[in-house]
Amino acid sequence: MNERVFAVLLAGGAGTRFWPLSRRSRPKQVLPVGGEAPMVRATLARLGDLVPPERVLVVTGEDQAAAVAGVLPEIPPENLVLEPAPRNTAPCIGLAAVEALGREPDAVLLCLPADHVMRPAAGFREAAARALARADGAGTLVTFGIEPTRPATGYGYIRRGEETAPGFFRVEEFREKPARERAEEYLAAGGYLWNSGMFAWRADVFLEETDRYMPENGARFALLREDPSRRADLFPRMEPRSVDYGILERTDRAEVLPLALRWDDVGSFAALARLVPGDEAGNHATGELLALDAHGLVTVAPEGHLVAALGVDDLVVVVTPDATLVCPRDRAEEVKSLVAGLRRAGREDLA
Amino acid sequence: MNERVFAVLLAGGAGTRFWPLSRRSRPKQVLPVGGEAPMVRATLARLGDLVPPERVLVVTGEDQAAAVAGVLPEIPPENLVLEPAPRNTAPCIGLAAVEALGREPDAVLLCLPADHVMRPAAGFREAAARALARADGAGTLVTFGIEPTRPATGYGYIRRGEETAPGFFRVEEFREKPARERAEEYLAAGGYLWNSGMFAWRADVFLEETDRYMPENGARFALLREDPSRRADLFPRMEPRSVDYGILERTDRAEVLPLALRWDDVGSFAALARLVPGDEAGNHATGELLALDAHGLVTVAPEGHLVAALGVDDLVVVVTPDATLVCPRDRAEEVKSLVAGLRRAGREDLA
Repeated sequence: MNERVFAVLLAGGAGTRFWPLSRRSRPKQVLPVGGEAPMVRATLARLGDLVPPERVLVVTGEDQAAAVAGVLPEIPPENLVLEPAPRNTAPCIGLAAVEALGREPDAVLLCLPADHVMRPAAGFREAAARALARADGAGTLVTFGIEPTRPATGYGYIRRGEETAPGFFRVEEFREKPARERAEEYLAAGGYLWNSGMFAWRADVFLEETDRYMPENGARFALLREDPSRRADLFPRMEPRSVDYGILERTDRAEVLPLALRWDDVGSFAALARLVPGDEAGNHATGELLALDAHGLVTVAPEGHLVAALGVDDLVVVVTPDATLVCPRDRAEEVKSLVAGLRRAGREDLA
Repeated sequence: MNERVFAVLLAGGAGTRFWPLSRRSRPKQVLPVGGEAPMVRATLARLGDLVPPERVLVVTGEDQAAAVAGVLPEIPPENLVLEPAPRNTAPCIGLAAVEALGREPDAVLLCLPADHVMRPAAGFREAAARALARADGAGTLVTFGIEPTRPATGYGYIRRGEETAPGFFRVEEFREKPARERAEEYLAAGGYLWNSGMFAWRADVFLEETDRYMPENGARFALLREDPSRRADLFPRMEPRSVDYGILERTDRAEVLPLALRWDDVGSFAALARLVPGDEAGNHATGELLALDAHGLVTVAPEGHLVAALGVDDLVVVVTPDATLVCPRDRAEEVKSLVAGLRRAGREDLA
């Protein structure tokens, strides 16, 4: 089966919650957030020899393509799948499915967001291989569920049902990002998994389910398969919806493979408190920090720049050559609003 | 009398409370804090034609001399009076007195800290001329008192006594920086003035009072007058004391001249909230600021750098190319502790 597997790196979007590190043309996925390598490069490296570069498809936006390609020199240019406009994950994965089917009628897809942190890589590869084999053999839509290690409120949850094959479970229910108490209940009850956004399925099965649950998109994909040159015309008309809402919550072919891996979707700067070791005052510094009576900080500064904090707690401070961000850790998600504000103000140079 | 007047700009010290803008070799007084020009340059400009550059003495430290001289090109090099070591204002002014007396036996000194903001300059010049005439004629030690406009807790106060000459008053008492309630009492009671640290007196009178109240220093100044080449030997042995504590609080020749001027000693970044106009959210930005649900900020950023603040209040944020400061406005005085920390850590490059 291996030579029919295509990895699909989902590398669209600018990751505005990582402004000012991220910019429109320097998206989050090319930054070394929470690690040493650009995130999309770490995602590729994590595949190891499971999928060779010539069968890695990278779906990204036109604004991000140059930066993404720049950190993935081994990926053939024709494997860069450009979204003419951002249309969320269901159309995006459909586009990759069409591309893969054009090369291999029995293609099996391993869909991976390009901005997650996961360890260890060997455990991931072993699980991915099992998921691909299961999806290929049973024609199911396999989603990777992460065994929760804390009552996270920033992730969606999957409640698993009966076991369908060794290690695989029916998806009983998808649950939205919960409030803190609810998240604690999930953790205590067991059987709840973090919805990782990583998937394995046959390309043709995915398009069948698209036909069934998002038929207008399905029709456009059919046209696109007939004439791939119509992408710029057809894709922007796709109904924008996530694969979870659009397909997985409706299909009866969804399965979940629970994984006990260290995983983080690195959703905002607050994630750095989990990914960067803290000092005795609970400060998580990337770059140099001088803290005096300051605790629980998340700081990022370039080489040769010192952040000095006095008498402040639980802030995010991110310094770049042309912009500096200061906000509370628990409002780090709202950083995207600052970027929206910059764009409204015509400051595209900084956005 | 005018040709016997020497202005003494007190331009020593690094102004560590303005770190990271200020550094050991780029002291506060050469920065344009709260204005357009370097503070020491603004102090010189404020003199107008009251004192010509050839009779302006600039007392500064060896670490600061190059920077200070650099922004005062019209001051003759021999007018730069270098303190071999910092010894507070009483020895510093004594040194200037010795220098002036070497040039003019009846010298009258106008002593001005080089890091204050004051407006209007014409009002200051008029008051300075009156203070100099009084000090010259009556042999008194005239201190400039500022009519308080708010219950400031960051300044010392002077309680004025009986009028000694039109507009001049005996100094009844010096009062330390008060707590808020006490400061409010002063303001309500009237008769209290801010101790501005600006003075006028004859050079010989100042040295007489030094002989009387700081006799060891007086003896060393006598030796220095005999042999000016002994400065590096004698000055470091001076008893370090402010002119207020060392002389003015003890002498019976102190007078105060109340002034109704806009004056600020620009003691810390918190002063920028008074000197830089605020926007509708009460943010005082020098340079570009994007504030979202953020209030009461004092920010400083270089040209071309944006500070973006989200959900934070009453902070000081100062960005420079190699260091960024974040602290609460009401702890801005403590910034000097950060600099001490840097020096202890051997980071002289940043201090």
